[in-house]
Formats: sequence, C-alpha cells, structure tokens
Amino acid sequence: MEKYSRNPTIDTMLNHASCRKFTDEKVSDEDIAAIFRAAQSASTSCFLQVTSIIRITEQALKEKIAVLAGNQKHVAQAPELWIFCADYHRNQVEFPESDLGWNEQFLVGIQDAGIMAQNAFAALESLGLGGCYIGGIRNGIQEIDRLLALPKNVFPVFGLAFGHPAEHAGLKPRMPAAVTFMENSYREPDPEVMKRYNELMRKYYESRSSNAKNVDWTENMIGYMKKERRTYMKDYVQGKGWDLK
Amino acid sequence: MEKYSRNPTIDTMLNHASCRKFTDEKVSDEDIAAIFRAAQSASTSCFLQVTSIIRITEQALKEKIAVLAGNQKHVAQAPELWIFCADYHRNQVEFPESDLGWNEQFLVGIQDAGIMAQNAFAALESLGLGGCYIGGIRNGIQEIDRLLALPKNVFPVFGLAFGHPAEHAGLKPRMPAAVTFMENSYREPDPEVMKRYNELMRKYYESRSSNAKNVDWTENMIGYMKKERRTYMKDYVQGKGWDLK
Repeated sequence: MEKYSRNPTIDTMLNHASCRKFTDEKVSDEDIAAIFRAAQSASTSCFLQVTSIIRITEQALKEKIAVLAGNQKHVAQAPELWIFCADYHRNQVEFPESDLGWNEQFLVGIQDAGIMAQNAFAALESLGLGGCYIGGIRNGIQEIDRLLALPKNVFPVFGLAFGHPAEHAGLKPRMPAAVTFMENSYREPDPEVMKRYNELMRKYYESRSSNAKNVDWTENMIGYMKKERRTYMKDYVQGKGWDLK
Repeated sequence: MEKYSRNPTIDTMLNHASCRKFTDEKVSDEDIAAIFRAAQSASTSCFLQVTSIIRITEQALKEKIAVLAGNQKHVAQAPELWIFCADYHRNQVEFPESDLGWNEQFLVGIQDAGIMAQNAFAALESLGLGGCYIGGIRNGIQEIDRLLALPKNVFPVFGLAFGHPAEHAGLKPRMPAAVTFMENSYREPDPEVMKRYNELMRKYYESRSSNAKNVDWTENMIGYMKKERRTYMKDYVQGKGWDLK
C-alpha cells in the first residue's frame, strides 16, 4: 500500500481500486456489523432515511443476480453482495398520504444510496477488504426487482460486492483537478489537459495487468456514450411509482 | 469523541454529525488538496467521471447561494462551500455524438456525485473538520445554475459546506438494522421496531441542545412527505438536456 502524508482514512481512500477477485474467506460478523453501522451513519437528506440494504446470502440468488448483471463472475464469487435500494416504501407505510413520484424524490433516493454506500466501501477497505460497485444490476433490474420482492416505491440502485481481496489492482489515474475542480463558475475543459490525460490513460490501459487494451480515456468512454443506455429505465422507474413529475 | 473498537476510519464515520457552525479559521490548502484527492479517488460508473466540483471562494457569491438555498446562514458562514455537479458536458465535448438525456445517465450522475462527495465528507471529518450537505441548493437551482454559468448537461446536485467546527452536535440515532438491513428479499418494516424507534427519536428531538421539538421520527418526516417537493425539478432537468427518456 502506497503511503501518503495525512492519516489512515485518507490513505485508505487514495489507495482505492476496485477489487474483482476474492479469497474464499468469509467476512466476519464483526466486520459486517461495522460496515453496516458506518454506512448508516452517513447523512441522509432531511433525515428521511429513504435507503435500504439487501444483503444477498443465498448462493443461488447471488448467482442469478450475477448473470442478470451482465454475467459478472465476481458478483457470484464475492462472499458479500449488498444491494443498495432507494426506499420510500417504509416512509409511505408510516404515512400513507405521502405525496410520492416527484423527480426530486427520485434524485434524493439515488443520492442518499450513493452517500451511504461510499461510507460502506471506505469502511470495508479500511478493514483490509476489497470490493466493487455493481451498476450492472440495472442490466436486469426488472428481474432483480422481482427476485428481491421489492414493493412499489423501492428500487435497487446498484450493488456492492466485497470480500477478502485475492488481487490488488493498480491505481487508475483520475482526471486532473484542472478540469474537474473549478472555482466560482463552470470552466470549459482545457483541450491540452485532456490530451495529456488521454496520453497518460493510454499508457495505463496498455500496461495494466488484466484487460490491457490500446485505448485512451476518451476512446474508452465513447463506447458508453455513443449508444443508448438501459432504455427501459424510465418505464421501470415509472412502474415503481416515480412518474418523475 | 466516542471511541469504538475497530479503526480510525470507522470511528470517524460512526461519530458523524452534521456541523453548521464554524470558526473563522480557513481550511488549509493542504487539507483542501487532500479532501479533493480523496473525493476523486472514489469509484465512478464505467470510469465515465461525470462529476465536477465547483468551489465557491467569492464571499458575495456564497452569500447569494446561502439565500437561494433557503436562507441557510451556515452556508454563507462556512469557510468552504463545494457544489457537486453531475457533468456530462466534458464527455460531450470530447465526443460530440454522445447520446444523452437518458434516465439511466441522470441516475449515474447523481449516484456518482453522492459517492464522490461522501469520500470528501469522511476525509474532512478525519482531519478534524466538520460539515453539512446542502440539498437546499435545489431550492434555487435555476438561479444557482445561472450564477455558476453551468452549460447544458451539467447540474448542481447538492453542496457541501465545511470548515473548522465551532459546535459538536450529538449523534442522531439511526433507524435500526431490523428495518433497514434485509436478507435476500424485501422485509416489511416491523411496526414494533418503528414504534420503539419513534420513542427514541422523540427523546432525541426533545433533548437536543438546539432546535429542540416534541416530535418523533415519523411526525418529523411527515412534514417532508405530505407536500409536493421542488415541483420545478423536472422542467429544470429537462431544460438541461435530460429528457429522462
């Protein structure tokens, strides 16, 4: 582990890399409890607490989700798979007259799932564990929704697969602050900065130990940006109670 | 600071409470750099990096945002105010043929803003700083958008105000795992658990040092759930390029 200057929390974050290979060792109950408590300690919008975590412990279910998430073997192999849900159902049970379906509420559910999950992620890495977000669960969101028996007003935003790491991937260079960290107003991306970042990323992609490829950041990103993305999401979300009005 | 058993990272998270009063001391450049690096080290969906941070350093601008965010004085008083944006503009500049406007992309921008911001938040708390998310920036989102000169395909999701703490709020009890942490499928909230949590929360709200009130969690939450929420969000988001198709 590379050492930086400040403290163990920031060191853990700066050394973050997704982990997709795990040993067979189970994650201890003590670690599970600590990671969950860290997750739920994060802020939630207006203290609405509109998130839930579903921990997948049945191996057969985990394997079904792995297939639905685009056949990601590490999802089935990970000792832990947690599904982070936006959940307005609990609030609606407490207050059946809740006025739901607003775009704003959709935003809050997703935002708070992200905030909660990243506490879990940094906490598990601080314990020497490794993991990976699984946005791929949205590939099969209707089926996963059914498998998890999610009621109306609950939907799975993403998964987090984790366990004891059997690989340590190298750090992936982030886009420089010059184009992502602005002051007082939006700053157009500097083409020179982007060009140098692309050169750096081509070297990174060419030389990494697994899935090496001759692309730069832009070329890699284009694959995701040129094609329509999960086109059923609007229908799915509306079916779950978010008209996005 | 309450001490728990595991490590400094998890201790920091378990001791999280929003802070809304700050000393006049500036946050050092070294801390700013460490917090930003921690933020950008978090995972991003498909490595698209569709987030940007706008740091507000002009006091007059900070004060305008504080008013637009529902007259939150601590926003103007905080030495640091960072606005976390979902940003597909940079990718679109790199690849003008990007197929944008999908509900899925809206979700990813929000989720990744939350993930990135929570690393920043835990990092700043690990440095002894305190802060508070400012979802209230969406109260005046159109005006704040204009003040920050945000192009199409960029919108401000929330702010993070922080600095050296001049208060240490007590910990706010979270809803128990019995209703938020499930196994393999959705579990209906147990009314008995909710009742006990409400009793606990009434005691918490009654006894806290500032803004004490005689409500329980459900009663407090109802205020947010019974009324339409930021009804202009759909029009705003669509105007920024997200048809949410």
